[in-house]
Amino acid sequence: MTIDPSAWTLGAAMNPIRVTIWNEFIHEKSKPEVQAIYPQGIHVALSDAVERHLGDAVEVCTATLDEPQHGLTDELLEGTDVLTWWGHVAHDRVEDDVVQRVQQRVLEGMGLIVLHSGHASKIFRRLLGTSCMLRWREADERERLWIVDPSHPITEGLQGDYFELPRAEMYGEFFDIPAPDELVLISWFEGGEVFRSGCTFRRGKGKIFYFRPGHEAYPIYHDENVQRVIVNGIRWAVPSGAEYFGTGRNIPQALSPIGKKRRG
Amino acid sequence: MTIDPSAWTLGAAMNPIRVTIWNEFIHEKSKPEVQAIYPQGIHVALSDAVERHLGDAVEVCTATLDEPQHGLTDELLEGTDVLTWWGHVAHDRVEDDVVQRVQQRVLEGMGLIVLHSGHASKIFRRLLGTSCMLRWREADERERLWIVDPSHPITEGLQGDYFELPRAEMYGEFFDIPAPDELVLISWFEGGEVFRSGCTFRRGKGKIFYFRPGHEAYPIYHDENVQRVIVNGIRWAVPSGAEYFGTGRNIPQALSPIGKKRRG
Amino acid sequence: MTIDPSAWTLGAAMNPIRVTIWNEFIHEKSKPEVQAIYPQGIHVALSDAVERHLGDAVEVCTATLDEPQHGLTDELLEGTDVLTWWGHVAHDRVEDDVVQRVQQRVLEGMGLIVLHSGHASKIFRRLLGTSCMLRWREADERERLWIVDPSHPITEGLQGDYFELPRAEMYGEFFDIPAPDELVLISWFEGGEVFRSGCTFRRGKGKIFYFRPGHEAYPIYHDENVQRVIVNGIRWAVPSGAEYFGTGRNIPQALSPIGKKRRG
Amino acid sequence: MTIDPSAWTLGAAMNPIRVTIWNEFIHEKSKPEVQAIYPQGIHVALSDAVERHLGDAVEVCTATLDEPQHGLTDELLEGTDVLTWWGHVAHDRVEDDVVQRVQQRVLEGMGLIVLHSGHASKIFRRLLGTSCMLRWREADERERLWIVDPSHPITEGLQGDYFELPRAEMYGEFFDIPAPDELVLISWFEGGEVFRSGCTFRRGKGKIFYFRPGHEAYPIYHDENVQRVIVNGIRWAVPSGAEYFGTGRNIPQALSPIGKKRRG
Repeated sequence: MTIDPSAWTLGAAMNPIRVTIWNEFIHEKSKPEVQAIYPQGIHVALSDAVERHLGDAVEVCTATLDEPQHGLTDELLEGTDVLTWWGHVAHDRVEDDVVQRVQQRVLEGMGLIVLHSGHASKIFRRLLGTSCMLRWREADERERLWIVDPSHPITEGLQGDYFELPRAEMYGEFFDIPAPDELVLISWFEGGEVFRSGCTFRRGKGKIFYFRPGHEAYPIYHDENVQRVIVNGIRWAVPSGAEYFGTGRNIPQALSPIGKKRRG
Repeated sequence: MTIDPSAWTLGAAMNPIRVTIWNEFIHEKSKPEVQAIYPQGIHVALSDAVERHLGDAVEVCTATLDEPQHGLTDELLEGTDVLTWWGHVAHDRVEDDVVQRVQQRVLEGMGLIVLHSGHASKIFRRLLGTSCMLRWREADERERLWIVDPSHPITEGLQGDYFELPRAEMYGEFFDIPAPDELVLISWFEGGEVFRSGCTFRRGKGKIFYFRPGHEAYPIYHDENVQRVIVNGIRWAVPSGAEYFGTGRNIPQALSPIGKKRRG
Repeated sequence: MTIDPSAWTLGAAMNPIRVTIWNEFIHEKSKPEVQAIYPQGIHVALSDAVERHLGDAVEVCTATLDEPQHGLTDELLEGTDVLTWWGHVAHDRVEDDVVQRVQQRVLEGMGLIVLHSGHASKIFRRLLGTSCMLRWREADERERLWIVDPSHPITEGLQGDYFELPRAEMYGEFFDIPAPDELVLISWFEGGEVFRSGCTFRRGKGKIFYFRPGHEAYPIYHDENVQRVIVNGIRWAVPSGAEYFGTGRNIPQALSPIGKKRRG
Repeated sequence: MTIDPSAWTLGAAMNPIRVTIWNEFIHEKSKPEVQAIYPQGIHVALSDAVERHLGDAVEVCTATLDEPQHGLTDELLEGTDVLTWWGHVAHDRVEDDVVQRVQQRVLEGMGLIVLHSGHASKIFRRLLGTSCMLRWREADERERLWIVDPSHPITEGLQGDYFELPRAEMYGEFFDIPAPDELVLISWFEGGEVFRSGCTFRRGKGKIFYFRPGHEAYPIYHDENVQRVIVNGIRWAVPSGAEYFGTGRNIPQALSPIGKKRRG
């Protein structure tokens, strides 16, 4: 499905949305069962999906852990409207100064989509201030994602009041995040847990969307509803709004007159 | 300024946004000083402004208190994406069944922009559940509106960290509303008060934006920044998201198997 | 000034909390299976539980639908710190002027605990502005309530990360409420749904807690965890804070000087 | 179980609240005009005020930058229910591992009251994830703090709809914080700015209150309303709620049965 660009986005996006898909890219090279699902890597699967849905309305590029600066150069970040993040076993191999630069770009307005195990990434934890930890289990169980905010553009085009994934890794509460600004999706798991699976946060001028589904051992990023939510998330996270003032500013001259006062 | 339609909206708005501008339309017919500012009524001034900013991306119509059903027939409401509301001295002349139908349409997804003295309208109070009352004073004082959420699309295109209105009626806290879902603008008033001037709320599938400025005795709706915020609010409030389920639904058949249990 | 430790509640509650337990009280008189569980009515079971937990710290009284003014006289409401509400089949028999008075008292600061099927009561819908409707099923299924805000006083004393009810009526999303100010508990149901089961809202000076569990056909109000949450909710909802200003106030005299301006 | 009325606090605070007052303690030793206002340091002034208001209900101790580990040993932090933080010129002299331990204690439930220029402290910025920067001006101007949530226990005992400080340093928007969980106070400044002066946040099990007033060059911590808000904030931030789960937990055994599925 190609969506006409005229149907999109919060921001002044006359121009294509510039999306960067970041992937740790380790499991796909070392585990045959993951390679079978994502032969070129999760980032390429996601990149293909985003391009298929958004067509000319998007320009996608990818970056991975093993590239210099993990592929996230100043130049690339400056030219990124929305960054998606997937990592799992190598969060601590992400350099702190890269994390610092990504955080700064988010504050300046770059959208950030954090996927699945990215909950434990340095960048997510730094932006949220909590452990971001959770319960988990790999037991081939059914997940059902319920829409709890049908007004939210991230749910655009979903049919019915939920969608399902037949086999998924379980993530359960307590999910140690700040109360999200908006709670969009809650997951039900066959084995007995629930999870806040679609959450938005704002930091500075940047919009952040955490979306739970997606384990390397399941073909979840090939699922049409999952792709739709990610694409909607990207559109929603496009920079919008007013100028960002993120530094201390001394304003010695008052805007309105201040009366003289006697010291006590 | 005409904004290209390709730059817009959260929803699937390939088609023009259908906006209905509702106005009480009393002061403009009875007070010469108001007539001087809004010779054809506030609704026509707003309508002109929205059309000027959005061009072909919008279809605007107006409705007023004195029309049958206050102009808000089922047919018009069904064909409205976003309704704006201005009223002041005749809130209690709005029929309850019209209020009921507007509320239902908001729950179903129609956007609602409540302007200035519309804070005391039946529809706003019914959707919010509080008195929606406030402090006020007419004293020709300066208002300065500060942006407290620069990530919000409603602030798109505003320059700097605030904008000013040289002469305004004062509205002050405590403004008896539920905590807004998003607080976008806070006003400073020369005479000493503050006010939460740009607030969003969600009810059902509908998005609501309250925007303070605009008194009949000041040319505030001719101000460019005020127009920009209203236009941004309309774009933001366009229906989006998933299907709305607003009725009780008995679902006798479980989605997943339920084990037999012995009664205690 | 020394504050007695007994004042450390949210409110200035040196004195006992005055709780009124309201019950529709219909099923218990007409259905033997309900009578077996609540022989004197749900209100008496709740009243006993609250007294058992809070002892001298509380004064409890009850009121039911069939009493004059449904038992909710001005005098009683004036003397109530926290009102709990249970209704099911007779919501539309509650008089509008009683609803109006309860709403006014909530705005003035009276706490309100809405239980289970009270989601469809006039008072809850009026305070929230939405339909408050939901999915439901009676199928003897297991419910597991997960704590998603362990910082909240309403969860005080709960053990572990969830508690269970072996057999319950199901309530599922979409629950048509405004986004709650605080989301405390999410339910998992055996048959496949999730539900926002513990939600807080503020209206005026009043604090509102919606708590899902409790069907007339299950002994849920005899469950210790359920009682604990209700008791915590009552303590949390005790009036606190500053003076409530819920009427329009004209303040002709500015607090700070306003400069003279020339009319445009 | 009968709960003693003295337990009606948010937490299980039968015992005195253990408060630790942290102060950078630099200006008071180097600037005579500051020494004149706070001869023993801001921490001692605050400590005296808290003890005067809470009497036996509190145990206060202080800690300062120059002590080993800045006075914040593991033992002290373990024994602290609520920590207050004042710093200004030496934020970067606070050791990262101390910040790390304070953050961990907040996540585990310790309350944190961040005062005035503490907005730029490492601990506040780490918990919030943003720059926490703002506009500022020292111009002897009047500040008026408006109550925008009269239901909040932090406003307990305040008279009227605002309180004033005759001379204050100005802090203005944009204040680069995440949208607060609760917005309690908004400041008006004579020179033309507004500021979100009383904000709450939750991180993990911990409750955080940011309160703006208080500059070393003004006797603001001797003001009765300011003291009252700080004391209310301390009482509100006392640990409460359920157990905190802040580590990843693998739960291999499902709570409810999971059906066998066929791969692919």
